[in-house]
Amino acid sequence: MTKLRVHALAVSLDGFATGEGRTTEAPFGHAGPRLMQWFFPTRTFVSMTGHDSEAEGLGTTGVDDAFAAATNVGIGAEIMGRGKFGPQTGPWPDEAWQGWWGEEPPFHSPVVVLTHHPRPDLVLGETTFMFRDASPHEALALATELAGGLDVRLGGGPSVVRAFLEADLVDHLHVVVVPIVLGRGVRLWDGLEGLEERFAIETVASPTGVVHHVFTRAPR
Amino acid sequence: MTKLRVHALAVSLDGFATGEGRTTEAPFGHAGPRLMQWFFPTRTFVSMTGHDSEAEGLGTTGVDDAFAAATNVGIGAEIMGRGKFGPQTGPWPDEAWQGWWGEEPPFHSPVVVLTHHPRPDLVLGETTFMFRDASPHEALALATELAGGLDVRLGGGPSVVRAFLEADLVDHLHVVVVPIVLGRGVRLWDGLEGLEERFAIETVASPTGVVHHVFTRAPR
Repeated sequence: MTKLRVHALAVSLDGFATGEGRTTEAPFGHAGPRLMQWFFPTRTFVSMTGHDSEAEGLGTTGVDDAFAAATNVGIGAEIMGRGKFGPQTGPWPDEAWQGWWGEEPPFHSPVVVLTHHPRPDLVLGETTFMFRDASPHEALALATELAGGLDVRLGGGPSVVRAFLEADLVDHLHVVVVPIVLGRGVRLWDGLEGLEERFAIETVASPTGVVHHVFTRAPR
Repeated sequence: MTKLRVHALAVSLDGFATGEGRTTEAPFGHAGPRLMQWFFPTRTFVSMTGHDSEAEGLGTTGVDDAFAAATNVGIGAEIMGRGKFGPQTGPWPDEAWQGWWGEEPPFHSPVVVLTHHPRPDLVLGETTFMFRDASPHEALALATELAGGLDVRLGGGPSVVRAFLEADLVDHLHVVVVPIVLGRGVRLWDGLEGLEERFAIETVASPTGVVHHVFTRAPR
């Protein structure tokens, strides 16, 4: 059965999953790259971004990489908030802008982009962005169909993850707590009082200083 | 040199160090005992509360107990907020009430209780509660003198710890993150953006599910 999975969602000690003041130049606002600094040295990330064979065998292979690698296993489609596609809000000012992800986005699957302002599907390499004004249940139904028997990844950002957690649609939630205090931005945990009652939680601290929490939903 | 140390300050995943709705009957508000559940099974706690020899050798002795035991080593005085003494606010309705801690409080040292409403010192067993309207710097100067060359423990609550962190007076900060989402209460991290820049941070996850963070202040 298709599961809905959240992977590598990084939050600060004070629970912010993204910073304040997001722009095209600063997708994470004042947080900058700090929430993902644990991810960049991993073999998984290096091999995603490296050119040709030069990236082969490079990168760390410890617990951070194990979690990074799990992100892509068995995924057939993604659901993301509009903010993960681009910084715009309201009606699209320019449909020619093709998002933050370049000509070969790393999703390699259908991606349902949640927005109140639908626009035509956008095919970039192996990724198809589908812009839909849909509830969590509707988006999951569509993505499940697109995933063809594989799982669906819920790609964030935090407000979207929160909405799906509130609707109790998330089966697997991997949160990475980074030891920084951001002070402002968008919080992950707001409105989720008692979340732990619906999940088994496993926790491991990485030698790099981050803490991986895996929330596994009790079988339905 | 005397250090100011915070130990075993437990917070939820969403950063609340105490719940909402504190009363005499519910010192932690709606959080109940959940933030300290990691602490109760430790040998350190069992031997603090056990009667005579029957508690000898009982209790867990893993990483949680190691951190629990470190709480009391080399401490000569404590500073605490009024809320850790009792739930009252404003002028003391009744000085006959002697706080939450019984006839032999577990501090065994002078304790500076920060309050805008001073009252006479209160001696209970080996503990002397001294009620002072003092700034963090003033309270630390007094407690340092009382500690007689040993360290001073900053006992909480979260608002008090925050004030001392803002004043950059804390040398050692042990925070325990408990995998629950409280949703409401008093937050520890508010107003402390960039705190990590002043500390080295070491993190370990306990098999019991909590995560211990040790913040060590760079030498002055």
